[in-house]
Amino acid sequence: MDFAPDARTAELTAQVRAFVDEHVLPAEPVLDAQLAATPDDWSPRPVVRELQAAARTQGLWNLFLPGTGPAGERGAGLTNLQYAPLAELTGRSPRLAPAAFNCAAPDTGNMELLAHFGTPAQRRDWLDPLLDARIRSAFCMTEPGVASSDASQIGTRIRRDGDALVITGRKWWSTGAMNPGAALLVVMGKTDPDAPRHRQQSMVLVPRDTPGVTVVRPLTVFGYDDRDHGGHAEIAFDDVRVPAANLLGGEGDGFAVAQARLGPGRIHHCMRALGMAERALELAAGRARERSTFGRPLAEQGVVREWVATSRVEVEALRLLVLKTAWLMDTVGNRQAMREIQAIKIAVPRAVQAILDRVMQLFGAAGLSGDQPLAEMFAAARATRLADGPDEVHLSSLGKAELRP
Amino acid sequence: MDFAPDARTAELTAQVRAFVDEHVLPAEPVLDAQLAATPDDWSPRPVVRELQAAARTQGLWNLFLPGTGPAGERGAGLTNLQYAPLAELTGRSPRLAPAAFNCAAPDTGNMELLAHFGTPAQRRDWLDPLLDARIRSAFCMTEPGVASSDASQIGTRIRRDGDALVITGRKWWSTGAMNPGAALLVVMGKTDPDAPRHRQQSMVLVPRDTPGVTVVRPLTVFGYDDRDHGGHAEIAFDDVRVPAANLLGGEGDGFAVAQARLGPGRIHHCMRALGMAERALELAAGRARERSTFGRPLAEQGVVREWVATSRVEVEALRLLVLKTAWLMDTVGNRQAMREIQAIKIAVPRAVQAILDRVMQLFGAAGLSGDQPLAEMFAAARATRLADGPDEVHLSSLGKAELRP
Amino acid sequence: MDFAPDARTAELTAQVRAFVDEHVLPAEPVLDAQLAATPDDWSPRPVVRELQAAARTQGLWNLFLPGTGPAGERGAGLTNLQYAPLAELTGRSPRLAPAAFNCAAPDTGNMELLAHFGTPAQRRDWLDPLLDARIRSAFCMTEPGVASSDASQIGTRIRRDGDALVITGRKWWSTGAMNPGAALLVVMGKTDPDAPRHRQQSMVLVPRDTPGVTVVRPLTVFGYDDRDHGGHAEIAFDDVRVPAANLLGGEGDGFAVAQARLGPGRIHHCMRALGMAERALELAAGRARERSTFGRPLAEQGVVREWVATSRVEVEALRLLVLKTAWLMDTVGNRQAMREIQAIKIAVPRAVQAILDRVMQLFGAAGLSGDQPLAEMFAAARATRLADGPDEVHLSSLGKAELRP
Amino acid sequence: MDFAPDARTAELTAQVRAFVDEHVLPAEPVLDAQLAATPDDWSPRPVVRELQAAARTQGLWNLFLPGTGPAGERGAGLTNLQYAPLAELTGRSPRLAPAAFNCAAPDTGNMELLAHFGTPAQRRDWLDPLLDARIRSAFCMTEPGVASSDASQIGTRIRRDGDALVITGRKWWSTGAMNPGAALLVVMGKTDPDAPRHRQQSMVLVPRDTPGVTVVRPLTVFGYDDRDHGGHAEIAFDDVRVPAANLLGGEGDGFAVAQARLGPGRIHHCMRALGMAERALELAAGRARERSTFGRPLAEQGVVREWVATSRVEVEALRLLVLKTAWLMDTVGNRQAMREIQAIKIAVPRAVQAILDRVMQLFGAAGLSGDQPLAEMFAAARATRLADGPDEVHLSSLGKAELRP
Repeated sequence: MDFAPDARTAELTAQVRAFVDEHVLPAEPVLDAQLAATPDDWSPRPVVRELQAAARTQGLWNLFLPGTGPAGERGAGLTNLQYAPLAELTGRSPRLAPAAFNCAAPDTGNMELLAHFGTPAQRRDWLDPLLDARIRSAFCMTEPGVASSDASQIGTRIRRDGDALVITGRKWWSTGAMNPGAALLVVMGKTDPDAPRHRQQSMVLVPRDTPGVTVVRPLTVFGYDDRDHGGHAEIAFDDVRVPAANLLGGEGDGFAVAQARLGPGRIHHCMRALGMAERALELAAGRARERSTFGRPLAEQGVVREWVATSRVEVEALRLLVLKTAWLMDTVGNRQAMREIQAIKIAVPRAVQAILDRVMQLFGAAGLSGDQPLAEMFAAARATRLADGPDEVHLSSLGKAELRP
Repeated sequence: MDFAPDARTAELTAQVRAFVDEHVLPAEPVLDAQLAATPDDWSPRPVVRELQAAARTQGLWNLFLPGTGPAGERGAGLTNLQYAPLAELTGRSPRLAPAAFNCAAPDTGNMELLAHFGTPAQRRDWLDPLLDARIRSAFCMTEPGVASSDASQIGTRIRRDGDALVITGRKWWSTGAMNPGAALLVVMGKTDPDAPRHRQQSMVLVPRDTPGVTVVRPLTVFGYDDRDHGGHAEIAFDDVRVPAANLLGGEGDGFAVAQARLGPGRIHHCMRALGMAERALELAAGRARERSTFGRPLAEQGVVREWVATSRVEVEALRLLVLKTAWLMDTVGNRQAMREIQAIKIAVPRAVQAILDRVMQLFGAAGLSGDQPLAEMFAAARATRLADGPDEVHLSSLGKAELRP
Repeated sequence: MDFAPDARTAELTAQVRAFVDEHVLPAEPVLDAQLAATPDDWSPRPVVRELQAAARTQGLWNLFLPGTGPAGERGAGLTNLQYAPLAELTGRSPRLAPAAFNCAAPDTGNMELLAHFGTPAQRRDWLDPLLDARIRSAFCMTEPGVASSDASQIGTRIRRDGDALVITGRKWWSTGAMNPGAALLVVMGKTDPDAPRHRQQSMVLVPRDTPGVTVVRPLTVFGYDDRDHGGHAEIAFDDVRVPAANLLGGEGDGFAVAQARLGPGRIHHCMRALGMAERALELAAGRARERSTFGRPLAEQGVVREWVATSRVEVEALRLLVLKTAWLMDTVGNRQAMREIQAIKIAVPRAVQAILDRVMQLFGAAGLSGDQPLAEMFAAARATRLADGPDEVHLSSLGKAELRP
Repeated sequence: MDFAPDARTAELTAQVRAFVDEHVLPAEPVLDAQLAATPDDWSPRPVVRELQAAARTQGLWNLFLPGTGPAGERGAGLTNLQYAPLAELTGRSPRLAPAAFNCAAPDTGNMELLAHFGTPAQRRDWLDPLLDARIRSAFCMTEPGVASSDASQIGTRIRRDGDALVITGRKWWSTGAMNPGAALLVVMGKTDPDAPRHRQQSMVLVPRDTPGVTVVRPLTVFGYDDRDHGGHAEIAFDDVRVPAANLLGGEGDGFAVAQARLGPGRIHHCMRALGMAERALELAAGRARERSTFGRPLAEQGVVREWVATSRVEVEALRLLVLKTAWLMDTVGNRQAMREIQAIKIAVPRAVQAILDRVMQLFGAAGLSGDQPLAEMFAAARATRLADGPDEVHLSSLGKAELRP
C-alpha cells in the first residue's frame, strides 16, 4: 500500500493546476461577460475555444480517454487513478475547465462508448470530430414520466424498417443538447419489449439534424439554464429514421452499453465534485480571514473553524475512497468495482452539497448570488444526487449486497 | 392552555385556503406564461393585479396590518396569532399569494413602519398608496462589503444640509427594487458615526426617482432573479438629496426602527416557510402515490415513509413554536418575545430547507426544474437563513442568553 | 388558542418544582450511598419511602391518575394537559422523582388498566395497594425472539383449564420485576391463536409468588441494571395457574387493553424525557460558566453557545407538541390523537438523546461517569426509542397515514 | 499509489483474523462467566492468560511495537501501515483481543514510551515485564477539575528533594489502574510551573506500591466499570517519593513525551473503533436476515438497507483515511501527520458511534443489553470522543490550520 502518486500523475497534476490557475480562473469573468452579451445563444462562448487552443498546445487534451482500445492513441493514455486528480482540478471551475481540456460530460462518456463499441465508420464520423472538439454531443436516456433508474420502464421505441431504424419517444435532461453544435445524439430505446429485462434496449446514433428530431425546450436546475455547456433539453423523436448501421453495439446491447458508460461517468462526477469542494474551501479561507463580525475575524470564531475542519476531513476521506475506486476499476474492472462506484456516488455529492451549504453561509447573501460560484456549484452537486440514478437506488442496492449471506 | 383557533381565525383560514386553492394555484402557470412572454420586464404581471382585485372583493386585504395605531382601520385588525395561519397559507404559493392579499414583503414591513413611526404626511404620501397596492416599496439596509448583522458597520452616510438630507452609499439585496413601480425606498444610513453604537443610524424615505439614485444591477439567488416580485437590486446613492421631513422616526432612531421591523418580518418569513413545507408535502404525497420504481409505488417504500413522517413531525412542532411566538408578541410584546423570535428564525428555515431537499429527491430531476415549485422554494428557504441576520448570529445570541446565570 | 397554563397547573407546577428542588435533588447522593451499601438488593431504598411520605403529606400523590372512572377519587383528577408539566419535572430526577409521587412506570400504566378494566375485586386486591405504594408491579409483554411491535408474533400461551388459566411462555424486559416487592405481574399472552389478528391476545393478572413463575435474570441497559426501580427481568412462566377471574378485561381483549396503556405511557415517557433535557441544560449552563479552556470560559465559546441554543429550540418546540398531544387526548381521545402520540414518541427521545450527547461532551469524561446523571439519562432516552415499539414502526405508520389520499 | 496490502500484512491479517474467529470470539461468553463468578475482582480473568499463551505460541505478540529502537527486537517490527489492519481486527472483540496479543491500551503506549525514552535500567525493570505481560500499567495524566486538553492546567506537582522526586496531586481516568497487577503508573506532573508553557511538565515512573499512592475509587462509563481491563481509577498521590532516576525523559520533557504517546495512541483507537464497526455490521447482517417484522425480513426493508449501506460507506472511507495517516506517520513522521491524526480522531469515533446506534436500533432492546456487545462498544466509542482531547479541541486546531494563509 502506497499513497504517493506516481511521477506522471504528479507532473500532470502540477501542469493542470497551473493551467487552471493561470488560464481558467481568470477566464471566469470573461465567460460571464460573454454570456451576458448574447443571452439567447446556446453555443459555447469564444473564451472556451481560446482555452481549448491553449490546453491543446500544452498537450492537456482528452486526458480522460484510456490508452487502450482502438482510439487509444488519441487520448492521454492515463489510468483512472492517474486521471482522478486531474478531473478533480477541473471541478474547481466546472463551467470552463472540463471543456478546456475536452474532458466535459456528456462528451467524455459518449467518446468512451464510441471508442469501445463503435465501428470504424462510427469512430471516423463521430469520435474523431469529438476528440477534436469540432462537435459536441448529447446522451438521451432519461424520459419524462418514468423512473429512469429502472431501465425496464423506458418508453422510447426503436423499430426496424428494412435497413433503417425508426425512433419514437420523448427524452429530457439531455445535457448539452440545447447547443446547436451538439451534432450527435446518443439515444437509448427499446428494440424488443418482449426480450429479457436487460436485453430489451438498444443504443443508436442520431444526427441532430435528422428529420423528426425536435428540441422542445430547455430545462433549468434551480434557476440555472446551464447555457454555458449546452443546457438540458427536452427532445421529441417522432418517427426519426436513421440507417441500421447507426446502432451502437448490437441490438439488445443498450443496457450493457449504458452501464459501461455509467461507471466512469459516476467517478468523474465525484472527482469534479471534490474539486468544487476544494474551490469552496479556498474561498472560505479567504473570506474567513478578511471578514470580521462583532470585532473578530470569522477565522477566529469556533463555529467557522468547526465548519472548515469538518469539511476538510470529509474531503480527505472521500477523496481516498474515490482514488481507491479508480484503482479498483484499473485493476479488477468496472464491474468488480460496482459497490465502490455506488459508494462514492452516494457519499461524495451529499458531502459536497453540505460543504457548499456551509461555505455559502459564510459568505452571506453574496454566497447565494452570481458573485460567487458557490450556488451554481451547489446546484450541480445537488443534481448529481439524482443523475445516473438517485442516491436511494444505490443505497438500496449497496445495502442489499451488504446483507447478503 | 388551549390549542383550538378562535372563531375568526377559523373562518378566515377557511376563506384564505379556498382563495388560494381556487384562484392562486391555478394562476401559477399563468404567471409563468406572462413571465416568459416579457422576459425583460421587472414589473408585476397582470395576473397579480387580477388576483389582488379578487382578494380585495372578498375582504382579504392587508391582513397583516394590526388593528391598533393610526392606520389601524385600514388593516384587518388581526393579532399575530390570528394572522399566523393566514400567512402560512400564502406560503403555499409564495410568488403569488402574498402579493394577492397585499401581504408581501418587503411592503408589509415598510407599511408597518409607516403606520407606527410615520407622520400624517408620510402616511398620506406613502402608506395610503401602499395599502392600496398602487405602489410597491423596497427596504435598503444591507450593504456590500460589510456584515449587515452588525449595525455598527453600516457605511452609508446621511448628512444634513440645511433642510435637506444628503445620502451617499451603496446598498444591495434591496428586494423588490428592480420593479419600476417600487416608488419608495426606505434607506438606513448613519447620521452620526460618533454617537453610541445603536444611535448612529437613521431611517429616511427616498422616492425612487430622486436624482442620484441608480439601480446598478439585479442580483440572483440560486440562478433565480425573482423577477415576479421585483428582484433584488444593488443601488447606488450618490449625493441623493431629500427633504429633512423624510426622516422616518427621529434622528438616531434608525436602529430602533429597523428592530421594530425585524420581529414581525421574521415571524412572517417563518409562517410562509411552513406553508412552503406543507405545499411540498402535498406534492410529495401525490408523487409517492403515482410513481412506482421496481414494481412498488414510492408510497409503500420505507425510506419515503420515513422522509414524510419526519417532515410532518418537524412541521407540527415548529408550527406550534411559531404560534406560541405570535402569542407572546401579542401578549408580552415583541421585545419580550425576542428569544422565541430568534428560535423560530433559526429552526424553521433550516427544517424547511431539509424538507424541500427530501421532496426534491422524491421528484427526481423534475424536482430541481421549473416544472415544480420546489427548487425555487428551496432557494427562498435557504435565503431566509441569511436574511435579517445569519443563523449563527441568532444562535450565538440565544446561547449567550441561555448560559447567563 | 392560548399558551398560558391554567391556575391549577401553575400552582401544582410550582409545588412540584419546589419539592423536586428541595427534597428530591438532595436525595440523589443519598440514593447512591444506599445503593452502594447493599449492592445485591433489588428492593427500593429507604430514601424512596421517605420521599413518598413527604410527597403524600403535601398531596402530591398519584398525580397521573385521571379523575374520571371508578377509582377517580384516588387520583389527583388532572387532565393530561395538566399533568404534563408535572411529569416533565419528575424527569429531572428520573430515578427518584417519579417514584416519590407514585407516578413511576410501569405502575402508572398498570394502575390505569386496573382502574379502567378491573373488576371491583381486582381493584381492591391490586389497585388499592398500588395506589398506596404498598406494592409495585410489572408489565410482561415483550418476549425474547420475536418483534414485540408485531402483536401477532406473541408466543406466550394462556389456556383455559376449567376455572383456571394456565400460562406458558417467556417474557423479558419486564421492568420493575426484579424488585421482590413487585407483587403483581400483568401478563399478555395468546388465548386463541386462530382468532383474528387483534383478538388472539388476553391480559391476565399473575401474583408474583404463583408457582411456575421464575425470575430468570436481570437485563442491563448499557451497563446499568436500573436496580433503583426494580431492574428489567427475564421471566419464565411454566404452567402457571391462576383463577379465570384474573383475566383483565375479556378474553381476546388483550391487544385493546395493551393499546389503552400505550398512549398515556408514551406521552409520560416524552414528558419525563423533556425534564431530563432541562436538567441537562441546567447542568450545561453551570459547567459552561465555571470551566475554562485555553483561557476562555466555555460559555463564551461559539460552539458551546450553538449547542445550547440548538438544544433549547428543540426542547421548546417539542414541549409544545407534547402539550398539544395531551390536549388532543383530553379533547378528542387517545385514539384520535394516535398520530400525534406517534410523532412525539419518535421525535422527543431522539432529540433528548442528542441533547444529552452534547452536554456529556461539555462535561468531558465526567459526563459519562456516575458523577453526573447524564449517561444514565442517555441510556434511558436511548431505550425509549425502542420501548413500546421502535421509532421505525411509528415512522412507517405515520408516513403511511400521511401518504394516504 | 497502490491500495493493495503488502505480503506480510496480508499474511498477518489472515492469521490474526483466524485467531480472533477461532479463539477470541468463542472466549467472550467464557469471560462473561468468569466475570460473573468473581464480581469483586479487578484482575484479568484466566481466559485472558489462556488467549495470551495461545497467541504467543503463534508469534502474534507485541504486534504494535515498531521494529526500530532499543527494544525493537522484542516487537513484531511492523510499520504503522502494517499494524493498522491487525489493530482493526482486535477491535472486533475489544475486551479480549487487544489483551490476547499484548496490544492493549494503555500498556502499548507505555511500552512505546519506555522503548523510546527509557534508560536501560527502566527498560529492564518495566519494559521487559510489560512485553512479557507479566505486569500491566497505567497512564496518569487526566485530572479532576481541569481541562486536560490544556496541559498548562495540570495541577499535580513533582518537586525534587535531593535524589528523590516527591509527587502530590490527584489523577482520574487512569485506565487499567484498578487492576492490582498494574504495577507501573506513568505519572505526568509539573516540575516547573514557571517554565515556558510546554516545558513545565515531567513524566515519572511510579511503582504502584509506593507509599502515598491511594487508589480512591473506580469510575464508570455508561454504567460499565470495564473491570475486564482494569477499570478506570481515581488515584491520589500524597507526597509520593520515588528516586530521581524514575524520571522518564528529562525534566521538562513531560509534554513532549506525552505528545509522542498520543499520536500512535489515537490511531490505534481509531483502528480498533473501525473493527467495532465491522463487528457490528456483521451482527446487523445476521439479525437482518433472521428477523422479520410484519411479514418481511428486516434485510428487505429499505430503511435497514440504507442504514447498512450508509455505515458501509463511512467505514470504507474512514479506513482509508486511517491507513493514509499510518502511512504518513511511517514516511514523514508523527509530527508531520498531526493534521491527519486529528482528522481521524475526530471523524472515526463519531462515525462508529452512529453506526453502533443504528445497529442497536436493529436489535431492539437486546442491542442495549449485555446479550450483545453493541452497547459496551458504543460506550467505548463515545468515550474515545473525549479521550486524548475532546473532538472540539481537535476541530478547532484543524480549522485554525486550514484557515491559515
